[in-house]
Amino acid sequence: MTYDLVVIGAGPGGFDAAVEAAGYGLKVALVEKRNLGGTCLNRGCIPTKLWLGATSAIEELHNQAKMKVASGEVTVDFTALQARLGKHLTGTRKAMAIQLKKLGIDLIEGTGRLSGKGTVEVDTPDGAQTLQYANLVVATGSRPIFFPGLEPDGDCVLDSDMFLAMETMPASLIVVGAGFIGLEMAQVAHRFGATVTVVDAMDRVAPLEDPEVSKTLLSIFKRWKWNVLLEKRVAGVRTVDGKGVLTMDTGEKITADTILVAVGRGPVTRDMGLEEAGVELEFNRITVDENLRAAPGIYAVGDANGLIQLAHAASHQGHYVAAAIAGKVTGPYEPGPVPSVLYGAPEVMRVGRMENEVFLADEGCEVSRAQLAANPMAQAHAATQGFVKVVWANGTVAGVTAVGHDVSRLTTAATMIVKQGWTSEDIHSIIFSHPSLDESLLAALKAERTPVE
Amino acid sequence: MTYDLVVIGAGPGGFDAAVEAAGYGLKVALVEKRNLGGTCLNRGCIPTKLWLGATSAIEELHNQAKMKVASGEVTVDFTALQARLGKHLTGTRKAMAIQLKKLGIDLIEGTGRLSGKGTVEVDTPDGAQTLQYANLVVATGSRPIFFPGLEPDGDCVLDSDMFLAMETMPASLIVVGAGFIGLEMAQVAHRFGATVTVVDAMDRVAPLEDPEVSKTLLSIFKRWKWNVLLEKRVAGVRTVDGKGVLTMDTGEKITADTILVAVGRGPVTRDMGLEEAGVELEFNRITVDENLRAAPGIYAVGDANGLIQLAHAASHQGHYVAAAIAGKVTGPYEPGPVPSVLYGAPEVMRVGRMENEVFLADEGCEVSRAQLAANPMAQAHAATQGFVKVVWANGTVAGVTAVGHDVSRLTTAATMIVKQGWTSEDIHSIIFSHPSLDESLLAALKAERTPVE
Repeated sequence: MTYDLVVIGAGPGGFDAAVEAAGYGLKVALVEKRNLGGTCLNRGCIPTKLWLGATSAIEELHNQAKMKVASGEVTVDFTALQARLGKHLTGTRKAMAIQLKKLGIDLIEGTGRLSGKGTVEVDTPDGAQTLQYANLVVATGSRPIFFPGLEPDGDCVLDSDMFLAMETMPASLIVVGAGFIGLEMAQVAHRFGATVTVVDAMDRVAPLEDPEVSKTLLSIFKRWKWNVLLEKRVAGVRTVDGKGVLTMDTGEKITADTILVAVGRGPVTRDMGLEEAGVELEFNRITVDENLRAAPGIYAVGDANGLIQLAHAASHQGHYVAAAIAGKVTGPYEPGPVPSVLYGAPEVMRVGRMENEVFLADEGCEVSRAQLAANPMAQAHAATQGFVKVVWANGTVAGVTAVGHDVSRLTTAATMIVKQGWTSEDIHSIIFSHPSLDESLLAALKAERTPVE
Repeated sequence: MTYDLVVIGAGPGGFDAAVEAAGYGLKVALVEKRNLGGTCLNRGCIPTKLWLGATSAIEELHNQAKMKVASGEVTVDFTALQARLGKHLTGTRKAMAIQLKKLGIDLIEGTGRLSGKGTVEVDTPDGAQTLQYANLVVATGSRPIFFPGLEPDGDCVLDSDMFLAMETMPASLIVVGAGFIGLEMAQVAHRFGATVTVVDAMDRVAPLEDPEVSKTLLSIFKRWKWNVLLEKRVAGVRTVDGKGVLTMDTGEKITADTILVAVGRGPVTRDMGLEEAGVELEFNRITVDENLRAAPGIYAVGDANGLIQLAHAASHQGHYVAAAIAGKVTGPYEPGPVPSVLYGAPEVMRVGRMENEVFLADEGCEVSRAQLAANPMAQAHAATQGFVKVVWANGTVAGVTAVGHDVSRLTTAATMIVKQGWTSEDIHSIIFSHPSLDESLLAALKAERTPVE
């Protein structure tokens, strides 16, 4: 039998492609070497959100205590939390397996490898299995990457996978890499009472974000007594006598119970026969055309093609590819604005283009903004530092970014506004509920626009 | 001098009308007898949100403790909370006064009364002041109303104004009226540890909402050990020996430290010369035409016209009326979908039409829904009871309602979706971030639709 579609990798991109294709009536096999749900479910977004959710009372209490309105103590039992997390993941994977079965999708558990035209060989615990395909989707995702000297040893030096599998939360933590992954995990450690050090080679935290967002984050982290070391090059990290020791290129050393290395993630695309099948790799990223096609009959979605490292972007690509294979769409893949979110407290959201992008494109860049301090919901949660910023290109909303309490809740509306290219005329087309944090988005949209020159 | 516009009432409707009109270059006077911000700021939405925000750690801790993940205790100091609330309100009113001054709006503090064609007489602490107007906006808002026997005595029987001004939170509370106002206040009392009884003449709580929403709320309240008494008629409430005593029409009595009567609010429109000026009142509501006009040159917005009792609806009307007076709009007032939100935990949101409305209009009513239990953010906060429900009319989204953890965050996106009349084609036009509670809205939009017959 030849499958209409074989998908390698059951993370958000691969799983959604398989499910969508089966919905179109295609015969589908899904190959997964580890766990249904991939990194996002098992070693990424979901565990971090469960950690953040479980500890949110600590943060809320802290903010009200600062105002002398509340007092007390909240203790989160990390062992119990990890047990609950494990149960949640098992349950979710089980539900996913049931969904696959219902849709008649064959789940093949093992490592897939391209082995000649239209063939995938899967190395399963029960021996090799050969699958014939008419179409292949490579959704093999990514794994943490390390510069030389920064490799985790699984002892006191951990990557994000190992960090999420810890049995106890360390009392002191050094995070190498001030991107979203490192910052979310550092926030959780902070809530558990750990002393936190963040080290980055760049001159700001969250270096992919608007510089003003980085500035606000830094100011909050400093208030939390984090040790934030910027423009620092790390020569190496290792475990010495049961402690994590980080050595700067200057020779300076800092020590903590645990070092988390979160400097980035890279595609998992090597040694699976891709090049032999005519797929081009550039820095391990699979090169795709405007239809997300890597070679005739072979598509790549998600972190494997490296276009954008976000679970929902992978899902969106998966949906498109399934529809393309089923002949339901023919046009090129259009991502639309892809939102990105840092969860926790503060949160960060961003969708569309940033100020510098619009400015550099010479498109009549203006910005308008609102401070969260003026918002009653931010006031109610005693977390008023932050802002919402709207970037305009020639009078149309091109991007929205925000930092502060609960700003993730602006994401979907902001995505719609950017996608629909709102002008100032559109602002009053809908009624924002009062009071709501969403009104800070409305306030930013209505605020005076300043030309960026 | 004749003002282009005199506004009576500085709540959301009146304040926004005044500000907007001044922005159009009109000369404006704003008359307020009590406090800038009206009921919403001083005795309604904002105080309740500050109470809910200050106590949210209690609820978060409770949920995680139920999962045996967290333990501890959070104590909120009610006196400190009330002091903080007072400070917040003073600060907000001050900022509003500064805004008025900046815009050249004359704030006249006193009680306004129509006293002949184009004239408002204001009874101020410094004596009477006479204002001439070309246009008048009546934005006098509403006050709690009571059936005979349910009048508050300010001792153990309180209305919502008195409740929000309390110096201590009672250990036991009876709330008469299971609408949003009563339920939000009951939630706060519950968080402070009060035993809560809710009494309503209807057969369900939140009787204006979808019956399934009422059912979910009831199930949560029962889990909290609330005593919810439905289809009960209250003969009277009064203070006896320092306790609130409620007597049913059956003669049965129940007792608590405090009784909150929250059975509704009615317009403040009497004894201010409206009828003499040609304005029609129906059950105290000012009758308005499609331009929100009550008589030549006289408009009414917000609770005073009784169209919809929500602060943001009043603001929206205020904006329209200001634009109409400035000659910027000529068409009839179009409210668009007005969202309504119950805050706290659980939350409720609703926008657009409900199932029964679409069904009764015979418009091919279908519903689709998603359970919050399937959402990772609800899981992360250990608050999974609830759902999102989409109501379709002839294949177009006509309404969205939801109940459960943090569902208020769906409001703005849902409002846009209803306003824009999305069909199933539009669902994939934007990317929802993952993980997010917003995905429960996406899931409900994508779910199988069941015809309502």
